[in-house]
Amino acid sequence: MKIAIFPGTFDPFTRGHEDIARRGAKMFDYLIIGIGHNSQKKRYFPVELMIEKISEALSDLPNVSVKAYDLLTAEFARKNQATYILRGLRNTTDFEYENSIAQANKQIYPELETVFLITSPPYAHISSTITREIYKYGKSISEFVPYSL
Amino acid sequence: MKIAIFPGTFDPFTRGHEDIARRGAKMFDYLIIGIGHNSQKKRYFPVELMIEKISEALSDLPNVSVKAYDLLTAEFARKNQATYILRGLRNTTDFEYENSIAQANKQIYPELETVFLITSPPYAHISSTITREIYKYGKSISEFVPYSL
Amino acid sequence: MKIAIFPGTFDPFTRGHEDIARRGAKMFDYLIIGIGHNSQKKRYFPVELMIEKISEALSDLPNVSVKAYDLLTAEFARKNQATYILRGLRNTTDFEYENSIAQANKQIYPELETVFLITSPPYAHISSTITREIYKYGKSISEFVPYSL
Amino acid sequence: MKIAIFPGTFDPFTRGHEDIARRGAKMFDYLIIGIGHNSQKKRYFPVELMIEKISEALSDLPNVSVKAYDLLTAEFARKNQATYILRGLRNTTDFEYENSIAQANKQIYPELETVFLITSPPYAHISSTITREIYKYGKSISEFVPYSL
Amino acid sequence: MKIAIFPGTFDPFTRGHEDIARRGAKMFDYLIIGIGHNSQKKRYFPVELMIEKISEALSDLPNVSVKAYDLLTAEFARKNQATYILRGLRNTTDFEYENSIAQANKQIYPELETVFLITSPPYAHISSTITREIYKYGKSISEFVPYSL
Amino acid sequence: MKIAIFPGTFDPFTRGHEDIARRGAKMFDYLIIGIGHNSQKKRYFPVELMIEKISEALSDLPNVSVKAYDLLTAEFARKNQATYILRGLRNTTDFEYENSIAQANKQIYPELETVFLITSPPYAHISSTITREIYKYGKSISEFVPYSL
Repeated sequence: MKIAIFPGTFDPFTRGHEDIARRGAKMFDYLIIGIGHNSQKKRYFPVELMIEKISEALSDLPNVSVKAYDLLTAEFARKNQATYILRGLRNTTDFEYENSIAQANKQIYPELETVFLITSPPYAHISSTITREIYKYGKSISEFVPYSL
Repeated sequence: MKIAIFPGTFDPFTRGHEDIARRGAKMFDYLIIGIGHNSQKKRYFPVELMIEKISEALSDLPNVSVKAYDLLTAEFARKNQATYILRGLRNTTDFEYENSIAQANKQIYPELETVFLITSPPYAHISSTITREIYKYGKSISEFVPYSL
Repeated sequence: MKIAIFPGTFDPFTRGHEDIARRGAKMFDYLIIGIGHNSQKKRYFPVELMIEKISEALSDLPNVSVKAYDLLTAEFARKNQATYILRGLRNTTDFEYENSIAQANKQIYPELETVFLITSPPYAHISSTITREIYKYGKSISEFVPYSL
Repeated sequence: MKIAIFPGTFDPFTRGHEDIARRGAKMFDYLIIGIGHNSQKKRYFPVELMIEKISEALSDLPNVSVKAYDLLTAEFARKNQATYILRGLRNTTDFEYENSIAQANKQIYPELETVFLITSPPYAHISSTITREIYKYGKSISEFVPYSL
Repeated sequence: MKIAIFPGTFDPFTRGHEDIARRGAKMFDYLIIGIGHNSQKKRYFPVELMIEKISEALSDLPNVSVKAYDLLTAEFARKNQATYILRGLRNTTDFEYENSIAQANKQIYPELETVFLITSPPYAHISSTITREIYKYGKSISEFVPYSL
Repeated sequence: MKIAIFPGTFDPFTRGHEDIARRGAKMFDYLIIGIGHNSQKKRYFPVELMIEKISEALSDLPNVSVKAYDLLTAEFARKNQATYILRGLRNTTDFEYENSIAQANKQIYPELETVFLITSPPYAHISSTITREIYKYGKSISEFVPYSL
């Protein structure tokens, strides 16, 4: 059984993340969306709310679950018997960052393979940072996230 | 009448920004330099000082004004009847960032077109961050900003 | 009067080029789409055919015309009283290339300003090379070009 | 059954390609290495030789086969009931190119998903062009290819 | 005598930094590893500890010393009679950043030349940020740093 | 004695190349500008002419010479007792390309170190391709090359 984790901060989970999750759910037998959080780092959208919203948005996908974790991502994967990390690439800045992370994860847990999908064009420009900024100013973010807030 | 805004943090406004503003003032009928500020985000150079210094540096351009705003940039444009955003590109890192912002702005305000100029080579390496760093250490920044401080 | 040229090889002119041309036609008083060609460089789609197809695709835009040229792009601009070059940016590879060209054009013709728009997401992945490749293998390219071939 | 193609020119197939093929063979039920060739484009290493060498290098992998094709890559995938394309990413230049290709393939064959792995660091700098250049000058390329030539 | 500084935050100094330092020590007559620190910026690994660990890791190199500084990097170079800055490049994101810094340093101290080496592939993915993250979660970082912690 | 080669096609040698050569001549005891040429690859400016023009442009530098070579660059370095390759970086596209070449050279000749300087801003946009294009159309290239043609 091929288990993958799709790790991220998801503050918030966007339509770009949804795109990757839906495509990943077809590729792997089981996909765990992992919200990395750390009591020392502040979030804007609470982890519990985000777990609820993601679960709701992807409720039609039986092989997907959502969990929070406060571990190294590689350890979270190992703990869940996952041998794949799924990540979306939007642009070249993402690529350089993901490259560093992927190699570090492999050094910690050599069986772990990081697999990339390129975010679909209509969602490639959506970032959590921009979405959060729009939300803070009281504007609708319904075009950016796959659930109501 | 083609009205454009040139938004930024401008902490501080550099010779690179001046280059874009002067070239933009020729392209558009009216150009508003918008200093995005937010009471929760700390600045090094006060907004009021920067408005004064930019106004002084560009006093020979009759179709340019300077304003501060605490709104989404797209909303600031709309409020000022601007249908163009002017932005400078220095390098590929800028490009990826600007691409995300431009698409988000268009989603919020579909009539808004973002227009890019590439910063002229002598100024392409100047960043507000580096300028601030030099200033903090008490060195002259006269080669980096178009006014005295 | 603000006259711009939108230069390119356009072998073929794609929906990505159309996106830039339509947005540019709103920004400038007059826009000349210039097909740079050179008897020594082979094309796949003849220049005459392309002039016809572009004219047809943009026939609703009264302030746009299409011309072929065998000159330096800066000279073509000068000859047409254009002081603007319009170019689309799709990604960072484009950016580096365009940066070099823009500076060279300014050195040849200092009044010439190069203005960039970022290609809209649905068209950002379309390249003339890929379109040509698909056409050569006999597949429909109607999703890639704004005219029938 | 998840079938993937790993398309390329493979002129020649390098240790970087081998890295991607071996990792891909674990991810998919069946992997077809597809050598895209075209009678009009000249190769340095003949297709037949390369099929033989790749087959030899990967003979321990029962779920991998090698084929040549003269079709659009998306059509080659469809003909082989493959719904995945596997590609390696070495750097940001690769990323921009692959992004364009991946979107075009999806437009031709919507069920086709392109999956990326980042080439492992020891092989990330190996390119077919450089390998060919070294070979032409009569130097050993045994560190660059996983077979003897 | 050619004196170079190798400036950085080194929080912590990694095997990637060691790679650059060792190669730089061969190129220059004397190499000063400069830990830029500032009482207002928080570090994770104390400067004193890092000076000790770097000195230990490079104790076989007689022409290398380690110093902390709270100055502009260009001023630190000048004070040490260094006319070279040595920096490692890992990827394109590094490149853009380093380009800006290098030009600013030259403006402050025109005799100062910045020289770049590309980090060797096995270390190119190591970043101080990732190393620190792994350390915080209590995992071994012995593959990332050239000393024990 | 530290000997470096500065290899390139130099078709033609530009002010950007001159910038790197002059800065490199200060760093190394001896610098050999190597024009890689190959009877099968066509040039626009003959090698002999270019040797003459480069020698003339750099005649004030006693520790610089110009040679043509038809060898792997690493072999050319070895033959000339050079243990350094000097290369200029203009932008991120250059970086990715140079990274691949540098690692391949090190694999062929492990003592060979590739050292990079970033091209000075006024010359960073000059490419041999653009210079050649301007020359072919009969325009002056005196701002792009450091000699008359």
